[in-house]
Amino acid sequence: MKKVPVILTGFGHVGRAAFTLFSEKRPAVRERYGIEIEIMAVMKADGAFHTGERLELGRISRGGALWTADNPAWHAGLPIADLIRPLGKGGCLVDCTPSNLPSGEPGLTYLLGALESGWNVATAGKAALVTAFGRLRALAAENGLALKFSGATAAALPTVDVGVISLAGTRIEGIQGILNGTSNYVLTRMAEGLGYESALDVARSHGIAEPDPSYDVDGWDSAAKLVLIANACLDQEFGLNDVRIAGISGLPADFVREARREGKSVKLLAAASPSGKGRAWNLEVQPSLLDPAHPLFHVEGTEKGITFLTDTMGSVTVTGGRSNPRGAAAALLKDLINIYYS
Amino acid sequence: MKKVPVILTGFGHVGRAAFTLFSEKRPAVRERYGIEIEIMAVMKADGAFHTGERLELGRISRGGALWTADNPAWHAGLPIADLIRPLGKGGCLVDCTPSNLPSGEPGLTYLLGALESGWNVATAGKAALVTAFGRLRALAAENGLALKFSGATAAALPTVDVGVISLAGTRIEGIQGILNGTSNYVLTRMAEGLGYESALDVARSHGIAEPDPSYDVDGWDSAAKLVLIANACLDQEFGLNDVRIAGISGLPADFVREARREGKSVKLLAAASPSGKGRAWNLEVQPSLLDPAHPLFHVEGTEKGITFLTDTMGSVTVTGGRSNPRGAAAALLKDLINIYYS
Repeated sequence: MKKVPVILTGFGHVGRAAFTLFSEKRPAVRERYGIEIEIMAVMKADGAFHTGERLELGRISRGGALWTADNPAWHAGLPIADLIRPLGKGGCLVDCTPSNLPSGEPGLTYLLGALESGWNVATAGKAALVTAFGRLRALAAENGLALKFSGATAAALPTVDVGVISLAGTRIEGIQGILNGTSNYVLTRMAEGLGYESALDVARSHGIAEPDPSYDVDGWDSAAKLVLIANACLDQEFGLNDVRIAGISGLPADFVREARREGKSVKLLAAASPSGKGRAWNLEVQPSLLDPAHPLFHVEGTEKGITFLTDTMGSVTVTGGRSNPRGAAAALLKDLINIYYS
Repeated sequence: MKKVPVILTGFGHVGRAAFTLFSEKRPAVRERYGIEIEIMAVMKADGAFHTGERLELGRISRGGALWTADNPAWHAGLPIADLIRPLGKGGCLVDCTPSNLPSGEPGLTYLLGALESGWNVATAGKAALVTAFGRLRALAAENGLALKFSGATAAALPTVDVGVISLAGTRIEGIQGILNGTSNYVLTRMAEGLGYESALDVARSHGIAEPDPSYDVDGWDSAAKLVLIANACLDQEFGLNDVRIAGISGLPADFVREARREGKSVKLLAAASPSGKGRAWNLEVQPSLLDPAHPLFHVEGTEKGITFLTDTMGSVTVTGGRSNPRGAAAALLKDLINIYYS
């Protein structure tokens, strides 16, 4: 039995889902993998909640009253290194802080603090990785620690695992992904005849699009995921500035309908393609016309998918995977298990 | 740099492809993973070729004249343990022997010999695993060795990796696969209007179907792959007797055409489903009607695909992956890399 102390940073939708899922799955993970998950603290931007004991779901889910200055378990402004120190080395930071570009904070401080303190990292946050991938990867490597980010690269859709593990030994010759469920949902509704604004309204009414959907529909979310997937699978250190980004915002309805009439579909495709010059790659996010033979042609609605082109294995496509916070939490749990189980 | 001595067993299409691919990829694997692959011997049913030195592609590809009694490097009837002993522990058996049911030989003897001698195993052969999975897995576990078989479970299509690694921590609630390219090709031609025999003739003329196609079209190949995938991903010890098998041999053309008229497709589906009784599973291979919404509906021709249904990640589908001997060789190389690279 391997005891793994966990600190959860960020307690929004994904953080709560992670706390709940890790607690529910605790007995199954112990039985199947011999890993005892112990969530020892929850950290938010303004402080940390910890009692010195493993945190129980029942207590945490009662919520609000915990995070107050008069609760002796609430520690305002505590640096993460101070939180980690009494727990020893070898624990796992499970980072669920929201993406904040270009600073990467507060996730970046948490990730650096964890890796410098001898802790592994599983993160669902993109911003810190997009901002400082090379630095974080080098720090993890120097200290023999894992830096996993499945939850940041399309939640439950396996992307990095497949590129790194299932395709080990191949030369990846291209990556193409439909990595943003909101955009794909809007495009699917547009293919059915709606205009852009109407399709977006439908997406909003189903809780699929945010009130301000620009991060999704302008292609930033897809670009951030593409950067992370390319860095992991192609062994690169790209940042967001390396991606040419065009979103679907304001896309003419005619363009989508016309494509459909010709038997094609319009997808917001995130692609890494060899530039033809040495080892360099072109990274692009843009609305793209797909033929019916394209393996991502049938990825509809909020579904996501990724295709890898390889030299020896042909093309390999993965689709599906739940997109909600619970799917992201499941990706974090997967990463944690794969760090400690062997 | 990690030197990995390799013995290749079986030298048919897959064995030759593996020798060629491992030789071609040697520099890239050294550079990317720090693994130095050294193929030290090639073993066939009647003996082994080894010189005490790493075998070079140029020499081996000259072929036939090597395997003769008057060649001092040819060792008739040498047991695998004797071949391994001078190479020390920690090497990798790369097994490419053809499937021979129900005995599992000659692969079974090779696999047992390797695991008993402290060697890891990557195999593309199904027979030994289907016949003696529990015994082989226990032997590997007792000795802290890896027993990998991606090459036996749909060649380059990632199946076991995804179920075990990418879905770690989920409860897998069902597995459905199109695991045999020959059958799927025949069904695709039938959906276009051909009768069974004509479709099979076309498959034969393209080198897709064997002269005796029964192993493929009667469902045995799919069943063997299903057993291996289920054993790995569901932590079971099924054998072929646990699978209800119905192939596509002699399937009426009307059945396939009628399905098409109704907007459905007929696929030879290999499925593991909970039986409803405790932890037991139903394993079946049978021609199945798929709706357009099924993630494997669009898997056509020789393509393969697999869908995992999970509790927390939703459904995850993988399609593609080259089906030829080079694809199987690439799966063997992937397994070898994942055994030694960390």
